[in-house]
Amino acid sequence: MRLAVVGAGAVGRSVVELAGEYGHEVVAVADSSSAVVADGTGDRVAGVDADAVVARKAERGIVGDDDPADALAAEYDALVEATPTTLGDAEPGFSHVTAALERDRHVVLANKGPVAERFGDLRAAEADSAGEVRFEATVGGAMPVLSTIEDHGAAHVAAVRGVLNGTANFVLSRMAAEGLDYEHVLAEAQDLGVAEADPAFDVDGTDAALKCVILANVLSFGAADDPADAREFTLDDADVAGIRNVAGSALDLAGEDGLTVRLIGEVAGGSVRVAPRLVKRNSPLAVSGTTNAAQIETASAGTLTVSGRGAGGEETASAVLMDLNRLS
Amino acid sequence: MRLAVVGAGAVGRSVVELAGEYGHEVVAVADSSSAVVADGTGDRVAGVDADAVVARKAERGIVGDDDPADALAAEYDALVEATPTTLGDAEPGFSHVTAALERDRHVVLANKGPVAERFGDLRAAEADSAGEVRFEATVGGAMPVLSTIEDHGAAHVAAVRGVLNGTANFVLSRMAAEGLDYEHVLAEAQDLGVAEADPAFDVDGTDAALKCVILANVLSFGAADDPADAREFTLDDADVAGIRNVAGSALDLAGEDGLTVRLIGEVAGGSVRVAPRLVKRNSPLAVSGTTNAAQIETASAGTLTVSGRGAGGEETASAVLMDLNRLS
Repeated sequence: MRLAVVGAGAVGRSVVELAGEYGHEVVAVADSSSAVVADGTGDRVAGVDADAVVARKAERGIVGDDDPADALAAEYDALVEATPTTLGDAEPGFSHVTAALERDRHVVLANKGPVAERFGDLRAAEADSAGEVRFEATVGGAMPVLSTIEDHGAAHVAAVRGVLNGTANFVLSRMAAEGLDYEHVLAEAQDLGVAEADPAFDVDGTDAALKCVILANVLSFGAADDPADAREFTLDDADVAGIRNVAGSALDLAGEDGLTVRLIGEVAGGSVRVAPRLVKRNSPLAVSGTTNAAQIETASAGTLTVSGRGAGGEETASAVLMDLNRLS
Repeated sequence: MRLAVVGAGAVGRSVVELAGEYGHEVVAVADSSSAVVADGTGDRVAGVDADAVVARKAERGIVGDDDPADALAAEYDALVEATPTTLGDAEPGFSHVTAALERDRHVVLANKGPVAERFGDLRAAEADSAGEVRFEATVGGAMPVLSTIEDHGAAHVAAVRGVLNGTANFVLSRMAAEGLDYEHVLAEAQDLGVAEADPAFDVDGTDAALKCVILANVLSFGAADDPADAREFTLDDADVAGIRNVAGSALDLAGEDGLTVRLIGEVAGGSVRVAPRLVKRNSPLAVSGTTNAAQIETASAGTLTVSGRGAGGEETASAVLMDLNRLS
């Protein structure tokens, strides 16, 4: 497929670098202020030079000398939307998605905003288009969470719960393993690049909640006979508590009983909840470090567990490539 | 889709019972000596009565008053092949598959024989047909192992290893947890119906080896540009050791070092191996009871782990329904 990649952070750059290996051709790349569009038109387009794009971004802070709007207008088969997640109107990501759908092109999202905050609008735009929207990368990176739900059928999935934020899990699992307190481990995580300078999005549970909201939308719309009847979820519908107040002493106590604490996101019975929860130390959800894990409760196949690296440029780009594979 | 289900054991019966919920219609069911085919022809077929089929099988040992050959000749879109796994020529399963492909119908296999023992023949028959062959149910029941490999692309998967036989895992994990010896736990497993009266297929590693051979074929043919160049694997290519000689004392020793023993199947670097191996007690592969687990080593997304119930009628039928979902 011919790809236009919008967003040139770690995920967008990894998609550009990996696309060729997976049989795709990148014909346009944009960041917020610049773009590069391959020469030629229609089937005669020659792809952009992935290495040159990545080098320009690193050296000059731009991906090329074209205008971002040119990338959206390029001759691509699928748009990869990898701009940063924004809340509320989910812009500019949402407009990128609709621009592609209006041209009957496919869209693969790594940006959580449009699927967490405007799922109904997105499904409506998709219904009017010959293009399809996929978004495996938005929940747990390359772990096959959404694809497994799709394969079983959302109507046959009762609940999903999991560890969906690697930063929070790193902090909690280090606190439990080493007996260190929150502030100490957070500082360590920041030194290692596992936590951002402003860690709020991760440690307050917002990122995990967005993933749960996406799962709730997938289950709700997937189970509805008519999308118009489906309940739509946004971040406002999630009950969210983060890990700032988890005391080291609580982890010690839990440990004495063979338990530990993880930040668990849960979608079940029409509610979305993220909170620190006690889990058995040998539970599949008691993963360590930045590993993510998710349990999918199915009607006929019991509980399926998947785990793996839930974040990272290459890992998330792999999920984008999985989606492109299903589209082609 | 209209389904013909061949094989009326636990898996076949569960497919018949669940098909309606998943939007399919069963138009024919056969076991080795009998069949029932729905009245009507072409698009006018009314499905068979699932409850009646299951009741007849339980009460009279037959699924209906028709001939098995009639089921293969019925007007179906996909054949579900759920007869018992046979080695060598993989008959009669293999002939059922080719009968469907010759009529340009899809095939979904729960029977491991044709994909473990005659993968090349099967791919050749599929290449001449408009029908497609899928077989998620043959490896780890409803765990998304083959679908995840397919989504990532077999060429981008370096290795797969896992616990692929629930009976052997039940025995080993009970031995380790309770300090009991092999014979004692095997007898217990037989009482519980977890192990067969003749447990050789499970405890000698044959079942796990067949699953590994299927994985090896998927990786080999998936990575080859031309199927004619792909190396084909059969059970003869697998290096297999079972669990009969695992001593309780060895498990005790392993436990002292935070390790345990599991029957691990591994496909890597063109070799297929099944043997009892030491694994860390907190490894994702150290699952307990009849749970299965598999680790898929990908090029760009690190190691993905999936776990769940690897056997059981409903669970395996769910995998068949996943495949049908991808076909429709």
